[in-house]
Amino acid sequence: MPFVRNTWYVIAWSHEVLAGALFARRVAGESIVLYRRADGTLTALENKCPHRHAPLALGRLEGDCVRCMYHGLKFDSDGRCVEVPGQTATPGVLRVRSFPVVERNRWIWVWPGDPARADAAKIPDAFSLDSPDWRYKPAYLHYQANHLLIADNVLDFSHLSYVHEKTLGGSPAIAAAKARVEKLPEGVRIHREVTGVPPSPLHLSLGMPDGEVERWWTYDYTIPGILLLDSGVRPANGAPGKRLHFHSCQAIVPESETTSHYFFMQAHDFALEDAQLTELLYQGVMTAFIEDKTMIEAQAALIAQTPPAPMIGLPMDAALTQYRRLYDAALAAS
Amino acid sequence: MPFVRNTWYVIAWSHEVLAGALFARRVAGESIVLYRRADGTLTALENKCPHRHAPLALGRLEGDCVRCMYHGLKFDSDGRCVEVPGQTATPGVLRVRSFPVVERNRWIWVWPGDPARADAAKIPDAFSLDSPDWRYKPAYLHYQANHLLIADNVLDFSHLSYVHEKTLGGSPAIAAAKARVEKLPEGVRIHREVTGVPPSPLHLSLGMPDGEVERWWTYDYTIPGILLLDSGVRPANGAPGKRLHFHSCQAIVPESETTSHYFFMQAHDFALEDAQLTELLYQGVMTAFIEDKTMIEAQAALIAQTPPAPMIGLPMDAALTQYRRLYDAALAAS
Amino acid sequence: MPFVRNTWYVIAWSHEVLAGALFARRVAGESIVLYRRADGTLTALENKCPHRHAPLALGRLEGDCVRCMYHGLKFDSDGRCVEVPGQTATPGVLRVRSFPVVERNRWIWVWPGDPARADAAKIPDAFSLDSPDWRYKPAYLHYQANHLLIADNVLDFSHLSYVHEKTLGGSPAIAAAKARVEKLPEGVRIHREVTGVPPSPLHLSLGMPDGEVERWWTYDYTIPGILLLDSGVRPANGAPGKRLHFHSCQAIVPESETTSHYFFMQAHDFALEDAQLTELLYQGVMTAFIEDKTMIEAQAALIAQTPPAPMIGLPMDAALTQYRRLYDAALAAS
Repeated sequence: MPFVRNTWYVIAWSHEVLAGALFARRVAGESIVLYRRADGTLTALENKCPHRHAPLALGRLEGDCVRCMYHGLKFDSDGRCVEVPGQTATPGVLRVRSFPVVERNRWIWVWPGDPARADAAKIPDAFSLDSPDWRYKPAYLHYQANHLLIADNVLDFSHLSYVHEKTLGGSPAIAAAKARVEKLPEGVRIHREVTGVPPSPLHLSLGMPDGEVERWWTYDYTIPGILLLDSGVRPANGAPGKRLHFHSCQAIVPESETTSHYFFMQAHDFALEDAQLTELLYQGVMTAFIEDKTMIEAQAALIAQTPPAPMIGLPMDAALTQYRRLYDAALAAS
Repeated sequence: MPFVRNTWYVIAWSHEVLAGALFARRVAGESIVLYRRADGTLTALENKCPHRHAPLALGRLEGDCVRCMYHGLKFDSDGRCVEVPGQTATPGVLRVRSFPVVERNRWIWVWPGDPARADAAKIPDAFSLDSPDWRYKPAYLHYQANHLLIADNVLDFSHLSYVHEKTLGGSPAIAAAKARVEKLPEGVRIHREVTGVPPSPLHLSLGMPDGEVERWWTYDYTIPGILLLDSGVRPANGAPGKRLHFHSCQAIVPESETTSHYFFMQAHDFALEDAQLTELLYQGVMTAFIEDKTMIEAQAALIAQTPPAPMIGLPMDAALTQYRRLYDAALAAS
Repeated sequence: MPFVRNTWYVIAWSHEVLAGALFARRVAGESIVLYRRADGTLTALENKCPHRHAPLALGRLEGDCVRCMYHGLKFDSDGRCVEVPGQTATPGVLRVRSFPVVERNRWIWVWPGDPARADAAKIPDAFSLDSPDWRYKPAYLHYQANHLLIADNVLDFSHLSYVHEKTLGGSPAIAAAKARVEKLPEGVRIHREVTGVPPSPLHLSLGMPDGEVERWWTYDYTIPGILLLDSGVRPANGAPGKRLHFHSCQAIVPESETTSHYFFMQAHDFALEDAQLTELLYQGVMTAFIEDKTMIEAQAALIAQTPPAPMIGLPMDAALTQYRRLYDAALAAS
């Protein structure tokens, strides 16, 4: 079982699932079809008709039911077959799995494991996704890499100094700073700060004046791959002046063992009415995240194409090592 | 051995194999090269020079022989090597397999199994392929799916109501009707009829007046994947009026375990001089068969990408279940 | 171990590795990054940071060192880690393999095996690559085929009569001629000559007058895939007249088990100032080598797609059989 099953995965942005339409995506190896019932609430079903394994996503929404458009079997929003053309009985065995699904703050979460254990209270509080105090533009990237290679990336911000030298970084001091890593029940909490550094190129493009600043990043990264990050920049040494404050919600989601989904956004709580700043921030973060993608997909390809070899651990890996340990335990328990 | 070997496969339309040219196609895992001898009759050889396994299809026709254009070995139309550059002897071991091949009614059939068992009398009578009483335009599709998934499709016309709702179908009554299934020595005979339904969208486009009709489909589907179908539409309840009558010949041919060839046509025996109707029928059937292809390739991809699971049998699967049983027996005997 | 390791492989043309830039290529399954130190001499390192396996080729050259631009580890030109951001120690275990590398006559050679056994004196003398007496234009092709299928090709020039009938060949007499094969410690020496044949189409395009000629090819082919070929054409029977003389250096290099690199050139030692002739010769040879590539990639695909079968040896295979035997022994010793 290569994926943790009893956990909440982000499967889509709310706006991806339109009323009256079927939407399918693979998460943790399962193909899942989503649709909205008449009242707007969501259904998440296995995207595979139990009869001949046709994708329900090629089917038709009929009220709150979905009809497989191969041979016409119709399923209700619990996944029960309610009609088989040419027969009156609809045996109970004819059902598709129904996944617990929760729509919260513009993300749609599904639980591929035991439904009895699906507790919506365990969904991390990605508050800035839907708050009058924050602005952002939603983003998505598809990765040709295992999700854990992406997790490694976000668990060690020393890469900001190198991968993102010209975007989010701007100083080797970020990598030189020690991160404080704290263990959480389902992940890790990381804090890193630097002072006496220049603003990042992205900060400058957002109107931060040049001069020595201090920067901080505080974030939780929890199973199966949810990042909630508070970060910002302010003048160094308590000097007065402009300050930028961000909150970022990110979800790294396995599609298959070699491909992943990446849902993310970075929100600002200042200049709320400045749509151009929202766009600049989106573009800047997207540019940086494509820097990550270039590096990580090259890394994944290199690992696949060359003889296996151990990776050598370093102190900077503290968070990712802890996270991998937690993840392996969760996998073993799945 | 994933394919039945002692059977006749359609490898090409007659018009695909031109005089003076080499034509190669893979059938049941074998790569076969076809060409016409001076008298127009066909040769079918293994497309693989026994010397270094170069494809003979990249070779040159020399009279009734083919020369491998890698190192110059020349083979006669029985597959015997008759010339090796630089040596006078042509040892008997230097030969390529020669396949029994029959050209009948514009289809070319090959027998990949034991030549001694190849009996041309066993080739199904696809009479409408070459008859003054029928008109059609030939068609071909390549599939990214195992041939048996396509066989399943044609063995259960309940899919007409759903996959082909807007083309060949037009009513859920087709799926609701029970098919009568009769066992044949090498396959199944299926009859389905419905009455009191509207004409299909395709029928309307061919000039059938609107109003209640009855429709019928009677067909044999035999190993390794030959469909011969008589179908039509007429006014319901014996009312007078226009009637459309069709005959369709189809061959579903494994190329590899994951890819297939689909040769097909649908012929009409009315309005023989109406070339526009022939074209409309061709376009209508092609559109519908691309609907099948979209569904079946999505089904094949879904099966390949998701955890294995059993399919759940339904009464509508009677024909495909019988056919699969016959096919498995033929496979075991191969 | 599918590749011979203790041997010199060509990894690049000299001009591919520019000052100030990182250049990566896979050779014998290893991904290797090349760069020039300040003095212009070459470094060849494993293209894989030992920390998280990011490709060093996405890194940055800093003086004679390379910095991984994922997390900032810096390596000297011996592959030793000399800096880890955020820590003072650089443990000895943090190193990338350094490959012996020699630049000679415009080719760059690497030794993937035991460095202690790398003896530059064993590099074959590809003299015409850099000689005032010869002119050529360098060439490269990438192959979707195992390197040994390409080796088979160059070890049997009987294919000139067929694959290259319209380019390098021009007569079946080439295939009919017996090659003389002599065993070398690391390969084979082959001599073939024909007389009373027409010039090849390529010869004619280079200004050779029509009429009976004699042609010769004398070459060594040595492990792991180095071809050094002296060839030419002159009037038959010692008649006076124009004579063309060529020297060709070729390196067939495994990239993976199913892909290969092919570095090659054909040089002329006459009309040295005639740049148009150099270009015509380049174009003619490139056209012919694409004929080989078409055949060999089709052969490789056919072998991969069809049931395994033995190849049948012929007298014309003498050289390739000897070479394969030597190669297998070298592989076993690797």
